[in-house]
Amino acid sequence: MINLIEDLIYSTNGKGMYEITDNINNWVSKKNITQGQLNLFIQHTSVSLTIMENASPDVQEDINRFFLNLVPEDSSLYLHGYEGNDDMPAHIKHMLTQTSITIPIKNKQLTLGTWQGIYLFEHRYNPHKRKISLSFLGN
Amino acid sequence: MINLIEDLIYSTNGKGMYEITDNINNWVSKKNITQGQLNLFIQHTSVSLTIMENASPDVQEDINRFFLNLVPEDSSLYLHGYEGNDDMPAHIKHMLTQTSITIPIKNKQLTLGTWQGIYLFEHRYNPHKRKISLSFLGN
Amino acid sequence: MINLIEDLIYSTNGKGMYEITDNINNWVSKKNITQGQLNLFIQHTSVSLTIMENASPDVQEDINRFFLNLVPEDSSLYLHGYEGNDDMPAHIKHMLTQTSITIPIKNKQLTLGTWQGIYLFEHRYNPHKRKISLSFLGN
Repeated sequence: MINLIEDLIYSTNGKGMYEITDNINNWVSKKNITQGQLNLFIQHTSVSLTIMENASPDVQEDINRFFLNLVPEDSSLYLHGYEGNDDMPAHIKHMLTQTSITIPIKNKQLTLGTWQGIYLFEHRYNPHKRKISLSFLGN
Repeated sequence: MINLIEDLIYSTNGKGMYEITDNINNWVSKKNITQGQLNLFIQHTSVSLTIMENASPDVQEDINRFFLNLVPEDSSLYLHGYEGNDDMPAHIKHMLTQTSITIPIKNKQLTLGTWQGIYLFEHRYNPHKRKISLSFLGN
Repeated sequence: MINLIEDLIYSTNGKGMYEITDNINNWVSKKNITQGQLNLFIQHTSVSLTIMENASPDVQEDINRFFLNLVPEDSSLYLHGYEGNDDMPAHIKHMLTQTSITIPIKNKQLTLGTWQGIYLFEHRYNPHKRKISLSFLGN
């Protein structure tokens, strides 16, 4: 059995969706792995992992709008706001999306569907360095 | 170690919740597996996986209504809509639910709770063939 | 390969966020495990698992308020309500959050970020005993 854990650091520069499919594909292709389960775990509570359509940039813009409307950045709505108006909304958006995603690997590749991309969904305005644990179990 | 990956194809016929617990149980019972982790990964961004109560059909109807209200099918709200009014809402509903679920296997069975069922939550009106990767690691 | 599955029972006493990070850390430290993937799977559909900031109690209060507003406990909105006004809202909150979370283990410890805690998010008013399957694969 192959049992790997490594961190991937990704720099974000404000709110929005950042596609990391190529980063993950590169990681997979550098390892001598063939089949098993790859887990992505993000070590923060104000940015999420998500699998989303990667064909149209409009999709990402619509997602940003939807979540801004669903979780307003209005400090009067929240008790918590040490780090600004985007602080508590960031945590709520994290809860509504994913901290951890497991993706199967087969024939040395992620088994993503044709239109699926892997994204960091950054909820903060300021630049951040984001750490993702990549762990693989399999052969 | 046993390391399996196979695809399950499921046909949906319009929006709503489709219980697939029996399909997954059948897959598990056909394999010679006893204990480990089973991952379900759906290879699309307009249908979700979810674990939900499977005792009352009213639950599924309430879920459909809630999500239709939360993510309106009103094309004036979205930039993206190549495939109709249900296109962008489908992606958002996918983001708010699950792409990937890991379920433990013990004594050759899924460790689901008494009232838990596994569902495809289809977000599109048109019929679709949906592909789920089933991957198992364990013994 | 080490392949473990055990249940953890946790008693909740009404709605809200219950931090279980110490419970999970204790479980990990009692097992002779070093590196791999730990999955937490909750065997119910009216309580969720979530990873959330554990520094400020205000965060948990804001989360309770947000979800109560997003999924109102108003029986006129739902068909299903055998167990009271919090019945159907509990299922919807479960769908919007997590049933199953995989967390990597490295150097005998959970690879949580500095501010990340693991929580049960209880959606029911009455006391409940909640069962979580802990399963580990690795070394």
